[in-house]
Amino acid sequence: MNVSALLTSVGINTGLCAVLLLLYSILRKQPSNVHVYFGRRLASKHLAHNDPFCLERFVPSPSWIVKAWKTSEEEILGIGGMDAVVFLRIVVFSIRVFSIAFVICFLLVLPVNYYGNGEIHHKQISSEQMEVFTIENVKEGSRWLWTHCLALYIITCSACILLYFEYKSISQMRLAHITGSPTNPSHFTVLVRAIPWSSKESYSDSVKRFFTNYHASNYLSHQMVYRSGRVQKLMTDAEKMYMVIKAASIEQNCKPSLMQHGLCGQPADSFNILPSEDGSVSGKSVVNMELGKSTKESAAAFVFFKTRYAAVVAAQVLQSSHPMLWVTNLAPEPHDVYWSNLCIPYKQLWIRKIGTLVAAIAFMFVFLIPVTFVQGLTQLDQLQQTFPFLRGLLKKKYMSQLVTGYLPSVVLILALYIVPPIMMLFSAIEGSISRSGRKKSACCKVLYFTIWNVFFVNVFTGSVISQFNVFSSVKDIPTQLAKAVPRQVTFFTTYVLSSGWASLACEVMQIFALFCNLCKRFVLRNKDDSSSGTLSFPYHTEVPRLLLFGFLGFTCSILAPLIVPFLWVYFVLAYFVYRNQILNVYVSKYETGGQFWPIVHNTIIFSLTLSQIIALGVFGIKRSPVASGFTFPLIICTLLFNEYCRQRFLPIFKTNAAEILIEMDRKDEQSGKMEEIHRQLRAAYYQFTVASHETVASHELCKFECLSHGAKKSSPDPKNVKPGNEPRQRNGSQTVHCDVEENRMK
Amino acid sequence: MNVSALLTSVGINTGLCAVLLLLYSILRKQPSNVHVYFGRRLASKHLAHNDPFCLERFVPSPSWIVKAWKTSEEEILGIGGMDAVVFLRIVVFSIRVFSIAFVICFLLVLPVNYYGNGEIHHKQISSEQMEVFTIENVKEGSRWLWTHCLALYIITCSACILLYFEYKSISQMRLAHITGSPTNPSHFTVLVRAIPWSSKESYSDSVKRFFTNYHASNYLSHQMVYRSGRVQKLMTDAEKMYMVIKAASIEQNCKPSLMQHGLCGQPADSFNILPSEDGSVSGKSVVNMELGKSTKESAAAFVFFKTRYAAVVAAQVLQSSHPMLWVTNLAPEPHDVYWSNLCIPYKQLWIRKIGTLVAAIAFMFVFLIPVTFVQGLTQLDQLQQTFPFLRGLLKKKYMSQLVTGYLPSVVLILALYIVPPIMMLFSAIEGSISRSGRKKSACCKVLYFTIWNVFFVNVFTGSVISQFNVFSSVKDIPTQLAKAVPRQVTFFTTYVLSSGWASLACEVMQIFALFCNLCKRFVLRNKDDSSSGTLSFPYHTEVPRLLLFGFLGFTCSILAPLIVPFLWVYFVLAYFVYRNQILNVYVSKYETGGQFWPIVHNTIIFSLTLSQIIALGVFGIKRSPVASGFTFPLIICTLLFNEYCRQRFLPIFKTNAAEILIEMDRKDEQSGKMEEIHRQLRAAYYQFTVASHETVASHELCKFECLSHGAKKSSPDPKNVKPGNEPRQRNGSQTVHCDVEENRMK
Repeated sequence: MNVSALLTSVGINTGLCAVLLLLYSILRKQPSNVHVYFGRRLASKHLAHNDPFCLERFVPSPSWIVKAWKTSEEEILGIGGMDAVVFLRIVVFSIRVFSIAFVICFLLVLPVNYYGNGEIHHKQISSEQMEVFTIENVKEGSRWLWTHCLALYIITCSACILLYFEYKSISQMRLAHITGSPTNPSHFTVLVRAIPWSSKESYSDSVKRFFTNYHASNYLSHQMVYRSGRVQKLMTDAEKMYMVIKAASIEQNCKPSLMQHGLCGQPADSFNILPSEDGSVSGKSVVNMELGKSTKESAAAFVFFKTRYAAVVAAQVLQSSHPMLWVTNLAPEPHDVYWSNLCIPYKQLWIRKIGTLVAAIAFMFVFLIPVTFVQGLTQLDQLQQTFPFLRGLLKKKYMSQLVTGYLPSVVLILALYIVPPIMMLFSAIEGSISRSGRKKSACCKVLYFTIWNVFFVNVFTGSVISQFNVFSSVKDIPTQLAKAVPRQVTFFTTYVLSSGWASLACEVMQIFALFCNLCKRFVLRNKDDSSSGTLSFPYHTEVPRLLLFGFLGFTCSILAPLIVPFLWVYFVLAYFVYRNQILNVYVSKYETGGQFWPIVHNTIIFSLTLSQIIALGVFGIKRSPVASGFTFPLIICTLLFNEYCRQRFLPIFKTNAAEILIEMDRKDEQSGKMEEIHRQLRAAYYQFTVASHETVASHELCKFECLSHGAKKSSPDPKNVKPGNEPRQRNGSQTVHCDVEENRMK
Repeated sequence: MNVSALLTSVGINTGLCAVLLLLYSILRKQPSNVHVYFGRRLASKHLAHNDPFCLERFVPSPSWIVKAWKTSEEEILGIGGMDAVVFLRIVVFSIRVFSIAFVICFLLVLPVNYYGNGEIHHKQISSEQMEVFTIENVKEGSRWLWTHCLALYIITCSACILLYFEYKSISQMRLAHITGSPTNPSHFTVLVRAIPWSSKESYSDSVKRFFTNYHASNYLSHQMVYRSGRVQKLMTDAEKMYMVIKAASIEQNCKPSLMQHGLCGQPADSFNILPSEDGSVSGKSVVNMELGKSTKESAAAFVFFKTRYAAVVAAQVLQSSHPMLWVTNLAPEPHDVYWSNLCIPYKQLWIRKIGTLVAAIAFMFVFLIPVTFVQGLTQLDQLQQTFPFLRGLLKKKYMSQLVTGYLPSVVLILALYIVPPIMMLFSAIEGSISRSGRKKSACCKVLYFTIWNVFFVNVFTGSVISQFNVFSSVKDIPTQLAKAVPRQVTFFTTYVLSSGWASLACEVMQIFALFCNLCKRFVLRNKDDSSSGTLSFPYHTEVPRLLLFGFLGFTCSILAPLIVPFLWVYFVLAYFVYRNQILNVYVSKYETGGQFWPIVHNTIIFSLTLSQIIALGVFGIKRSPVASGFTFPLIICTLLFNEYCRQRFLPIFKTNAAEILIEMDRKDEQSGKMEEIHRQLRAAYYQFTVASHETVASHELCKFECLSHGAKKSSPDPKNVKPGNEPRQRNGSQTVHCDVEENRMK
C-alpha cells in the first residue's frame, strides 16, 4: 500500500464521516426521531419544544458539538452516573497520551524512519510505500535507534503518570460517589445464596433463624427470591396485558396534550414513582409471595440489615463452616438485580463459569475464519492466485486501492457486530447476580476477544491458521512480533480510519434504532411513541473499542508513527460523540460505580508492556544492544508500577471501607433518617412486579403529566415521591429537578 | 543401567539403611544422646528412667517401631499438633495410593511392557537393561496400550477419591481444632500495620483513637510493636548475660538431682510458666515499653477485641479508604509471632515479595550447575569423553555401577541440603508476620525448587543448559516429556533408593544434631544439657520431600512400574520414622492448623495432571489414538475435581467461619470465662522478653523440678499456671498432664 492508497482511504472515511455527521445534525431535529436521539431526555421528561415545520430543521448545524463541549464533568456525573465519567476519562486520557505521542513521534521518530536508510532514493511522497515511514526502513545497526528508545520512554512515563493520577482521581470520585449519593438500599442489603434445604422448615424460616441467631443485633428483615416458573410468567404476562389495556384507555385522554410537547416516555427510575401505587403493587406482590411460598421458594434471599457496616461485615465474613452454604454477597442495587440468575443453585456457579470461559475461548477460535478471509484481502497477489477470475477486476487501480485499503476493515467490522450479543449471552449464563456485573463481565470477554482477533490474529495470521506455531514458541515471541507488527501497521492504520471513524459516525447516527423507528413508523404504521424502550450505555462494546484503539496506538506508535494522527482524530471525535450520546440518548438505569477503571488500567499496562516487548524484539533485529538494554528496565518498572497501583487503589473498587460506612451510618442515625430508611428498605426489592410496575409507573406519570400540563391545577404530592436512589436525581421533588435541568439546557 | 546395577544400588541402600536404623536403636538408648533423640520428651518433662549401664543398652531392638505403630492419631494430635497429623496423612495417603498403583502396575502394566516388543529375545533377567521394563519397550501402534490407559484411570480415580476424603476429614479436623482447643489469644487479636504517621499524636494514640472511634463496642486494648533497634538488642543481650550467670548459680544446686533423672531441658511452652515470674518479667517489659514509647514505636500494633467474631470482622473488613493504611490481619499465636518482621513498613512488603520471588527464581537457575554435573555422571560415555583420565577407572564394572547407580543421587542430595536454609532466609526477608507463615512460604519455595531441579532439569538437562529450548516450545512439551521421562526413569528409581531411603535413615539418626552433641561433649567438654535447643518439625524440608517422591511416583508409575515398590517401601519406612520423630524429637512450638494440606492437595493434582499429559505424549508417540482420546477427558475431570475442592474446602483454611466463632464466644460468655480471657489477653504478647523469658522460664522450671523431685514438698501453685494455649496441653495443671502422658507411655 502506498501513500496515495492511504489518502484514498482517508478521503473516503472523512467524507463518509462528514456526511453522516451532517445527516445526524439534521435528523436529530426531526420530531419523528426524537425517540432515537433523545431517549434519555424523554425519560427525564424535559425537552425543548420543537416547532413542527421550519427551515431550520433541515439546515445542518454544529450545535450538538458546542453543547457536548460545554457540559461540565459534574453535569455528566449527574446525568450519566460515574460510569459515564469513567468512560469519558478513558477518552481524555487517550487524547492526552496520544497528543504527547504525536509530538514525540513526528519530531523524533518519523524523520529517523524516513531517512533511516540512506541508500534508498526517495520518490515522490504520494507514490511512496507506507513501509518507508515505519521502523523497517531503518537500517540494521543504525545509531539512530536511541530515538525510538527515547520515544518509548517518554510515552511510557507520561502514560504511567497520567494513569496514576487518573486512578487516584477516579478512586476519590468513587469514594465521593458512595458517601455523596442518596441512601442506597443495596448498602444495607446482603444477598444470601445456597441456603441449606431442610425438610422441617421453609427456606424463609431458615434464613430468619440463621440471621436472628448469628446477627441478632443487626438483622432487620429478609425477602425471599422466588423461582420464576411458568405460573409466575403467566401471571406477569396477564398483568402486562391488563396494563396495556389500561394504558390504552389512559392514552386516549393523554395523547393530544402529549403530542404538543413531544414527550410521553417512561421514567428511568420507577423506584421514585412506586409508592404512588403502593397499595396495589404490594398487594400484588403479597399474592406472589404467598403463591411462591407454597410452591417455589428458591435458596436465595435478600437480607436487610440495620446499618451499612453490618451489611458489609455479613457480606465479607465467611458465614458457615461449609463454604458452599450461606454464601453472602453485597446485594446489587434494586434496578441492577438480574433476577433470573438469583435462582441458579450456587453449586452450579463454578462449573458455569468454567463452561462459559471454555465456550468463549472456543468462540474466539471459530471466529478466526472471517478474520483470515479479511487478512487475505490485504494481500492482493494471494487473492488473485486463489480466485483467478478476480484478476481483471483487481487490475483496475481504483478497485485495488479500495480492496486493500477499505474492504478488509468493513468485513471485520460487520463480523465483529455479532460478538457483543454472544458475549452478553455467555455472561448471563455465567450467573452474574447484577446487570452491571453481567455487562462488566461481557466487557472483559469482548475486550480479550477484540484484542486477540484484531491484533494477534492479524499479526500472526498465516502461521496461526496453517500451523498454530504461535503457541509453540514463547521465547521467540518478541522477535516474531517485531517482524510481523510493522508489516501489519498499514492494516491497523486503515482499521483506525475505517472502523474507528465510521463506528463513531454510526454511533451518533444510531443507525439500527433509526432503522427500527422508520420501520415502525412507515411499515407498521405504529405511532405509539411510548412503547420504544430507552437504551442503557453499551459499555461492553464501547470500552473494548476505545481500549483496542489505545492498544493499537501504543504498540504501533514508535514503529509506524503515521497511525498516531488518525488515532488522535478518532479520540477527539469520540470525545464529542460520546458526550453527546450520554447527554441525549442513553439512560443509566444501573451502574458499577467506576468498576470499569481497573479493567482499563490493566489493559493499558498490558498495551504498554507489549509495545515494549515488541520494541525489544525490533531492537534485537536491528542489532542495537544499547536500545535493547535500556528497554528491559522499562518493562520491569512498568510492571512494578502496575503492582503498586493494584495495591494502592484496587481494594477500593472491590469493597467499601469500614471507616466510610460507619461515618455514613452515624450521620443517618444522628439526623434521625435511619427509621425512614429501614421502612423503605423492605419495599426496595420487588421480584415479579418489575415489568408491570414500570408500566404502571409510566402511565401514572402520564396521568400526572396530563393533569399538570392540561390544567396546572395540581402539584405532585410530595409524600408520593421518595428520595431517589439514583445519583442523578438528587432533588426531593421532580418539578424542581425538571426546572434545574431546563435551566441547564438554555 | 541394567538390572544387576539396580540390584547393587538396592543392596547398598538396604544395607546402609539397616545399619543406620540398628545404630539408631542403640544410640537412642545412650543417656548422653538423650537431647538428640528425645528433645520433645525432655521439653515435656517425662521420660522413662534409664539405667546407667546395662547390656540392654547395646542390643538393637525394634521397640521404637512398635511404639510408633501403636500410637493413635489422637495421641499424635495431642503431642505434635494438627500439622503433624496432616503431615502423617500425606504419608498414609501415599501408602494407600501406591499400594493400589503397585497392584495395578505389576498386574497390568509390567507384563505388557516386558513382552510388549515381541521381536526382542529376552536375556537373563539380571543382565536385562532397565529399559525393557519401561513403556519404551512397547512397540508403536501396540493394541496393548489400553492397559496403560486403564492403569492411569484407576490410579487417578483412586487418588482423587482418597484426596477428597482426606481434604474433607482434614477440614473437619481443622474445625474441631479451632473449636476444641483452649482459649487462643490470637483469636481475639488483630495485627494492625501501616498506622498513619501524625505529628500531633503518637502511633499508640492513633490506634486508640481509631479503634475507639470505629470499633468502640468491641475494642479492648492494644499493644504497640517496637522497633528492635540497637538499644533493644543491647538490653536483650544484657538480660541474656544476666540469665546465664543466674542460671549457672542455679545449676550448681540443680545438677546432681537432675542428672539422676536425665532431664533438665527447657520447656517448649514458656507461656505456661511465664506468670511464675510475672512481676519481674512484666516489670522489664514495662521498662522496654517506656523506652520504646519515647524512641521507637513502630507503625504496627496488636489490637485486642472483646470477642473472636469482632476480631475476625476487624481483620477482614477494609478499614480505611486508603487501602495501604490501617491494614489489619488476624494476629498469629503469641509463640508464632515473627517480631522482627512486624516493624517492616507495610509499603515495602509488596516489593519485598516481588524481590524474593525474583531472587528465588534466580537461585533456581544458578542451582542448575550441580544438577548438570550430576546428570553427566549417569551418562558414562560422555563423562569419559570429557575426562579421559577417568576411562581406566570407569572400565571396572563395579566402579561403573557405583558411579551410574549411586553417586549422582549423593551429589544431588548434598547440593540440595543448602536449599532449605536459603529459602527460609528468602521467606524471612519476604516479611511473614509469623514463624509458621514463614515456614509455609519456605515450604512452597522448596517444593517448586525441588520439583523443578530434580524432575524437570534432570529430564531436560541437555537442552536447558545448551539452548534453553524447553521454554520455547509449549505445544511440544507433552511429546518432549514423553520422550525424555522414560529415559530418566532409571535415575529417578535410584534417586528414590538413595535419596529417599537414606534421607529417612539420616532423619531418624539426626546426624547433624548427633555430631554437634558429640563435639560438645568430647571436644568442648561441655556437659550442660539444658543449653541445647529443641527443634521444631522441619515441615519446609520434609513436606516437599514427601511430595517430590509422590510426584515421581505418579509421573513414572505407568511408564516404568519398577519405581513403585521402592516408593512404597519409602513411604512405609517414612510412616514409622516420622511418627517416631514426632513422638520423641520435635517440639511443636507453633502451628498452622493444617494449612499445609492445600499445598499438598495442589501438588498432588499437579502431579496427576502432569502424569496424564506425559501419558498423552507417550500415547501420541506410540500411535494409539484411542488411548490418547481417553486421556483427554481424564485431564479435564481431574482439573474440575480440583476446582470443586478449591470451592468446597479452601475457604475453611483461609478464614474462620462466623458461625463457629460466635458459638465459641457465646459459650465463653455463658460460662463466665470471658473476663478471665480478657485479663489474660493483655499479657499474651511480649515483644522483647521472648528470648530472656524463655531462659527464665526454663530455669524457673529447673528450680521447681529441683524442689519437687528433691523433697516432694511443694506442688505447683495452680494459680501460677495459665491454661495453656498449645493444643497438646489441655489440662489446667501440669502435674495432671504429666501423669496422663506417663500413663500413655506405659
